[in-house]
Amino acid sequence: PMAGDLDEQRIIELVLQHGPPQGRHPLPDHPAALPGDDAALFAPQRVVTTDLMVEGVHWDSRSTEGDVGYKLAAVNASDIAAMGCRPTWAVLTLSLPRPVAAAWVEGFARGLGEGLGAFGARLIGGDTTASPGPVFAGLTMAGEGSAVVGRDGARPGDRVWVTGTLGDAAAGFFDGDPAGLAWLRRPRPPVELGAALADMGLVHAMMDLSDGLARDLARLCARSEVGAVVDPSLLPASPAVAALPAARRLQRQVAFGEDYQLLFTAPPAAERAIRRLGSVLDVAVSIIGEVRAEPAVCLQGAEWPEPMFDHFPVTGRPEGAAR
Amino acid sequence: PMAGDLDEQRIIELVLQHGPPQGRHPLPDHPAALPGDDAALFAPQRVVTTDLMVEGVHWDSRSTEGDVGYKLAAVNASDIAAMGCRPTWAVLTLSLPRPVAAAWVEGFARGLGEGLGAFGARLIGGDTTASPGPVFAGLTMAGEGSAVVGRDGARPGDRVWVTGTLGDAAAGFFDGDPAGLAWLRRPRPPVELGAALADMGLVHAMMDLSDGLARDLARLCARSEVGAVVDPSLLPASPAVAALPAARRLQRQVAFGEDYQLLFTAPPAAERAIRRLGSVLDVAVSIIGEVRAEPAVCLQGAEWPEPMFDHFPVTGRPEGAAR
Repeated sequence: PMAGDLDEQRIIELVLQHGPPQGRHPLPDHPAALPGDDAALFAPQRVVTTDLMVEGVHWDSRSTEGDVGYKLAAVNASDIAAMGCRPTWAVLTLSLPRPVAAAWVEGFARGLGEGLGAFGARLIGGDTTASPGPVFAGLTMAGEGSAVVGRDGARPGDRVWVTGTLGDAAAGFFDGDPAGLAWLRRPRPPVELGAALADMGLVHAMMDLSDGLARDLARLCARSEVGAVVDPSLLPASPAVAALPAARRLQRQVAFGEDYQLLFTAPPAAERAIRRLGSVLDVAVSIIGEVRAEPAVCLQGAEWPEPMFDHFPVTGRPEGAAR
Repeated sequence: PMAGDLDEQRIIELVLQHGPPQGRHPLPDHPAALPGDDAALFAPQRVVTTDLMVEGVHWDSRSTEGDVGYKLAAVNASDIAAMGCRPTWAVLTLSLPRPVAAAWVEGFARGLGEGLGAFGARLIGGDTTASPGPVFAGLTMAGEGSAVVGRDGARPGDRVWVTGTLGDAAAGFFDGDPAGLAWLRRPRPPVELGAALADMGLVHAMMDLSDGLARDLARLCARSEVGAVVDPSLLPASPAVAALPAARRLQRQVAFGEDYQLLFTAPPAAERAIRRLGSVLDVAVSIIGEVRAEPAVCLQGAEWPEPMFDHFPVTGRPEGAAR
């Protein structure tokens, strides 16, 4: 029987329910496991993630084929960084409608190469096919780090941090901000900072911001069995986002996604080292709130805005959610 | 400008041309690298492969959703076995048309779980999305072995071996043979044998038969810079294939593919050990010819039949090839 839309969580549950509980080869004993983290541990200090992009769903005509290739590398690298790791290798799957346009492949390949190069990953394999459908591009990326960080370590009293500015991609998508649109097409997740934060043992929990602070912070807190309070006035904004009317600004900053910034929690004592690291690596780092023992995840003096969904882009977003 | 169809080789060349020649993390120095082998080495004794299946291209209504899930695991495991390795972990990408049918996902998940369980791999991550297009299912699978075997080590004087019987999937697809159709839906690549052959140092070169002996043996020989002569009367056949008229039997056995058996070369001195291993693991092993120094790849007393292509299935087949 046809059911209504299944959301991503339910699909994953169905797959796992029938998957072998244990392969023949034991994996490292670590909480990082599907579906709870940005990437999965497959060996000590080694993680792997996969992201797929479908034409008409994850990009529209405002993105060139080069943007698509670049972004596929960037969104995977963001997941690796969120585990405190650095990208190492990647494999590509690509399905193209016939007749296959050489110019499309050439542009995609150039963008993918730029992205992989920017984040330090090497393409080592792949599979391609033609199909009657839209373009489908999937990348699996591995990474390694000296201290893998999951979402589950946040503790009451931790400061809540984010990198960069929030809401740029949303402002590009909805308000036509050119810098925001550039970020939407070619995000630059702070991979080196993520890995360095983990190396130096400065963070308790970390993830990347792909679905908006509202959803993502709630996930981190749920995994850590804590709550948090966020001060909206502390959310870092680019000039274009800062200039928006207050309600719209808040919505862009927390309810859309595609930020590809890092969200992490750290003890107060780590503040100075984190600020210094951000300065050295030229990545803005901001405290936006605090972890609490009570499970609620609140905005100080405001309600969380309704999630903003659009058919494009939906990377990582549960598909059953209403628009 | 739109070009004509690009074949898989050309797409891969375009991607690699723009890919970073070297990631920041050096990879093991080994000839196993895209596009020359069944899987790519990502660490010493560790390989990874990826295979994509698209609805309407790689399967039709004769396959259930469980068959699709199972086969996705099997074709990846076959690539791992062809490197002399055993599957360890896998990550899944799945794109489903809306509304997502719970029954489809449930059946697919069960079949995937059966396949992963049969070949010893554990599902550790994935990404799912909805799309307007056909179902896309991609799996990336890793494996490990004590001695990774590529396609490049065949030497003149080696015997050419295959496992199992050839032509079953073709006989199922074109002649309606029920056992062949069962193999087409649920191939059982001899994974343990592939890994054991490598462990014991018995083989010089190995790959899996996915595109038919004619194409695949030519690839192995090209990589090894040798030739080969095959005796058609030695090609192992199931009763249904053996009963076909000679010309059709030969075509089914060498020109279609989907065999998911192993093709390998070994020195004459290894014959006894290989036969013993096949017997212990209950996998048929057959010598079908010999490696020669001259680069030609010939059939004794026969011409290679024209490749048989059909829109379904085309796994791993260059897309520019005419039907």
